[in-house]
Amino acid sequence: MTDLFDVIHAQRAHRAFADRPVADADLARILDAAVYAPSAENKQPWEFVVVRDPAGRAAIGALIERAWNSAGKAFSHTRLSPALLTDVDAGATGGIAAAPVHIVVGADTERGLRQTVAESIFPAVQNLMLAAGAIGLGTALTTIAVGYADELRAIVGFPETVRPMAVIPVGYPARPLGPPAREPFAHHTHRDRYGDRWA
Amino acid sequence: MTDLFDVIHAQRAHRAFADRPVADADLARILDAAVYAPSAENKQPWEFVVVRDPAGRAAIGALIERAWNSAGKAFSHTRLSPALLTDVDAGATGGIAAAPVHIVVGADTERGLRQTVAESIFPAVQNLMLAAGAIGLGTALTTIAVGYADELRAIVGFPETVRPMAVIPVGYPARPLGPPAREPFAHHTHRDRYGDRWA
Repeated sequence: MTDLFDVIHAQRAHRAFADRPVADADLARILDAAVYAPSAENKQPWEFVVVRDPAGRAAIGALIERAWNSAGKAFSHTRLSPALLTDVDAGATGGIAAAPVHIVVGADTERGLRQTVAESIFPAVQNLMLAAGAIGLGTALTTIAVGYADELRAIVGFPETVRPMAVIPVGYPARPLGPPAREPFAHHTHRDRYGDRWA
Repeated sequence: MTDLFDVIHAQRAHRAFADRPVADADLARILDAAVYAPSAENKQPWEFVVVRDPAGRAAIGALIERAWNSAGKAFSHTRLSPALLTDVDAGATGGIAAAPVHIVVGADTERGLRQTVAESIFPAVQNLMLAAGAIGLGTALTTIAVGYADELRAIVGFPETVRPMAVIPVGYPARPLGPPAREPFAHHTHRDRYGDRWA
């Protein structure tokens, strides 16, 4: 399934993965897609660490679990739907750690500008996740571990000049997921001025 | 052209547009694609103002030109290639203003979390730009006007709770653009630890 609109409409956050390895060639394909994203001044400030090593993935998983249990869960408890809370909880306490690959995304703040890091990294992350979906791989955009930047830096060896931005688990989905739940775009689209609804 | 990989590999920043209107149905298609992006807690904090009004576009264009001339150009002068500097300069001094549509993207910081705004908005922006490319429209991700948040808020009527995140000109390209210039992903990809190059 490589039709752009089909891929976009099917994207879901995967937090449970099959026990099945991911080929280097497939990772190359999604990383190649990532670097075709735009970035401020075309500085391409991304750095990707592809973690297959079980110790590295266990350390990342433990960091996510710690972040979730120490603050995330209590905070999100009343904010998420019960189904989403259950899914996120299962992901943070082992589901994500079980992915065969974690891609840790960093931003080189010497190559790119500190002020434009976000708009220079997340389009690439989205390209990567769409490309993964197109070839049957599941991903999720997680940023909870980024709050523990020093710990995450230590795990993947990022220097001080590379800011951790996201951890993307990559693997074959444990099960197919249905269509994503979204409000129609028209609910949040306006004509010329905020408040003049699109339709 | 709707193959995901073709669209991704052809994406360029368009800063010059043909004098040709864009249909509502096409805008609906790209805005619909935008809202299928992931967002933290699935809060979908985006707000889109579709500016067709000439006065609104002129005001946005003037703001971009002011930002560019007051600081951006001097700063970027030594950072950009001569070709890119020329293109960005032409865009900031009239090219972007001439697009028939500007989509101003905001983040509702009451609906979404302030801390996760970036990762909740830029994937949607990227979906929008990819979808535009798939149907023959040109776009560019611009954030220079966002530094003048109060002025941009006044132009599109965003309340204090909606943070301006990007301005996306949308239109048919003035001319076709060649393939984007990118470093190979392998130059910025590592295995297990930063510094252990992918290949």
